[in-house]
Amino acid sequence: MKNILNKVAGFSVKAVKAGIKESGALDLGLIVADEMATAAAVFTQSKVVAAPVTLSRKAMKNSKGLIKAMLVNAGNANACTGAEGMKNASSSAKALAKDLGCKQSEILLCSTGIIGVQLPMEKILNGIKKVCSSKGDAGKEFAQAIMTTDLVEKKASVKLGRGMIAGVCKGSGMIAPNMATMLGFILTDIPVTRTVLQKALKDAVDVSFNSVTVDSDTSTNDTVILLSSGKAGGRVINKTSGNAYNDFLAALKEVAVSLAEQIARDGEGATKLVRVNVRNAKSIKDAKLAAKTVAESPLVKTAMFGCDPNWGRIIAALGRSGAAINENKTSISLAGKVIFAGSPQDFNASTLSKKLGKKEVDIDIDLGIGKGEATMLTCDYSYDYIKINAEYHT
Amino acid sequence: MKNILNKVAGFSVKAVKAGIKESGALDLGLIVADEMATAAAVFTQSKVVAAPVTLSRKAMKNSKGLIKAMLVNAGNANACTGAEGMKNASSSAKALAKDLGCKQSEILLCSTGIIGVQLPMEKILNGIKKVCSSKGDAGKEFAQAIMTTDLVEKKASVKLGRGMIAGVCKGSGMIAPNMATMLGFILTDIPVTRTVLQKALKDAVDVSFNSVTVDSDTSTNDTVILLSSGKAGGRVINKTSGNAYNDFLAALKEVAVSLAEQIARDGEGATKLVRVNVRNAKSIKDAKLAAKTVAESPLVKTAMFGCDPNWGRIIAALGRSGAAINENKTSISLAGKVIFAGSPQDFNASTLSKKLGKKEVDIDIDLGIGKGEATMLTCDYSYDYIKINAEYHT
Repeated sequence: MKNILNKVAGFSVKAVKAGIKESGALDLGLIVADEMATAAAVFTQSKVVAAPVTLSRKAMKNSKGLIKAMLVNAGNANACTGAEGMKNASSSAKALAKDLGCKQSEILLCSTGIIGVQLPMEKILNGIKKVCSSKGDAGKEFAQAIMTTDLVEKKASVKLGRGMIAGVCKGSGMIAPNMATMLGFILTDIPVTRTVLQKALKDAVDVSFNSVTVDSDTSTNDTVILLSSGKAGGRVINKTSGNAYNDFLAALKEVAVSLAEQIARDGEGATKLVRVNVRNAKSIKDAKLAAKTVAESPLVKTAMFGCDPNWGRIIAALGRSGAAINENKTSISLAGKVIFAGSPQDFNASTLSKKLGKKEVDIDIDLGIGKGEATMLTCDYSYDYIKINAEYHT
Repeated sequence: MKNILNKVAGFSVKAVKAGIKESGALDLGLIVADEMATAAAVFTQSKVVAAPVTLSRKAMKNSKGLIKAMLVNAGNANACTGAEGMKNASSSAKALAKDLGCKQSEILLCSTGIIGVQLPMEKILNGIKKVCSSKGDAGKEFAQAIMTTDLVEKKASVKLGRGMIAGVCKGSGMIAPNMATMLGFILTDIPVTRTVLQKALKDAVDVSFNSVTVDSDTSTNDTVILLSSGKAGGRVINKTSGNAYNDFLAALKEVAVSLAEQIARDGEGATKLVRVNVRNAKSIKDAKLAAKTVAESPLVKTAMFGCDPNWGRIIAALGRSGAAINENKTSISLAGKVIFAGSPQDFNASTLSKKLGKKEVDIDIDLGIGKGEATMLTCDYSYDYIKINAEYHT
């Protein structure tokens, strides 16, 4: 069965085993536009940035967002690798550009895996030749090639008129010495101009990939790339308003949120997806602060693992979040049941605890003092989180 | 053997079993100044604040910092208890003031324990009578009466000239439905004016109690109180400069840092104390941001539990901390061994891992771009942290 990525017209999606992963699994993926693709990209906010991120940022600028191909490897992050790391990233892009007959600046690069170790360049260069000559319908293999500690492939798609938007991603936390970077690759055949594509991606990432937290840690390599081939035809979306744009943005958000939820659900050691929904905060900024602080609280996350309807930990997180809080106007629901509304509410603890045992739990917080809304996606903290992250040795 | 609190002249230190803790253990403590004590206090920064904190803040203002007594109970935090909670706190202070023959505004209150449940007022009022008539040399019992999830008593003292500074504290994380509030009580017989005492406490708390993080969570009840009886005699310290002040501040910091280290060491599930020392940051603010982000990173904390010399997680935390970072100028040492200095350094992983198995580990970070310094105290994340926090049910 073909992967959803292959259903987007105008792209070849490829993947091979280049020998970068010690396991010998698929580890090099390539997306090539039949002609040129309009590209949008969002990169890590970290001040420690991997070589491929630096190179891709430059490429986005120099190519004015017209991209021929995107190469990604797993097994080595090419981060904290200094001048040699930059040279290796550049050599990879150059070799690929030569094979594809395009400019080096028309290549985007992503890496994920161990940090502080130089790329195995012989394997990379051989891998590039191999992947270029491989079949272009390898969407499923591509989704596997980008995995590190992920337990499952993550994919989502939405049809929109004659076209479609489809994406894959990887990420489940940061584990040592790997950084289990969050990478997202979304393809569409709907024609969109560069500026509009970038705005739509930024807005979609804000409510999806930037609203997911497994363990508060941001990687040096985080990247989300959106490529449009325009092959679906029809009118080019060239402004950030109107029905065509709004429909495109809604579909893009749907894909991105689904991918982000899959990341949270596959968080290291996670037993469930936890959605923290804050509304009626004083401002959107306050809503985000409140949702993030609750979602990142180790005490809330362990309570979710223990299926414990513990409003005390939630209100304590709200209190220290920095958001404006009026305790008397605050209400908190767990799995749809109000447990605090200015004061503690009666509930059947064992019934509610059973509901918290489901694979998805919503924490709904109404701050009652404004109109700000935000949702943060996270997972619970289990024994396996400690096991995965403590028992590995550098 | 007498507790160190009893070595400070001018105070009676008392404790009884009032029946507030379900276990029947000591749960009500009282410190009474023979005459009046000059008081300084620092309270939680949370926007959700317990009734005793509100009442003590008022008392500090109304009494102009001249305090007769400090009452503390464990087993019930009197937090999220609304108007009735405020009334109960006030009734407690009133009853104690009557027994001691002082004004209500000369009483400070602290509570720690379960939240959202009203104080058992009959037990509290009977307890107040009982504790007032109990012996005044119960420093050891006082240190036990304030414990909730703490495994060990925490105490520290320093002699200074004819006087001394001695303190006890409690806190080991926040657990459900309790908030294992951080409370600190420091007594001195060295004479200090109110303004100077408050400044010294603020500075000492900044490098101690405000520099300790077990699980990023701040409680609604956190309070540190410093009382001076002046009974050691000698010149009153009345300015925040000069040898007398500097010596006093240094001694106070020593007591406060020791207490804070004891809190981190006794963190829920902790197997070791971890000190994150940042120096040569662009500013003190940056140094604090960097130290806090590393100290609160679940990935760093699990690596410390696993005795894993994982510089990748440390540099990733630095990168996302918000502090200015130049990767090439950054160096990181673990347990005295340099493992990153602009690039990864060679080290014997098994030798270093053994060193990380000790009860105290230092993470030294030199950012190489300024003069900002800060230290953050924390502990590791172990299976027991998850156990303690997930297996309890509300």
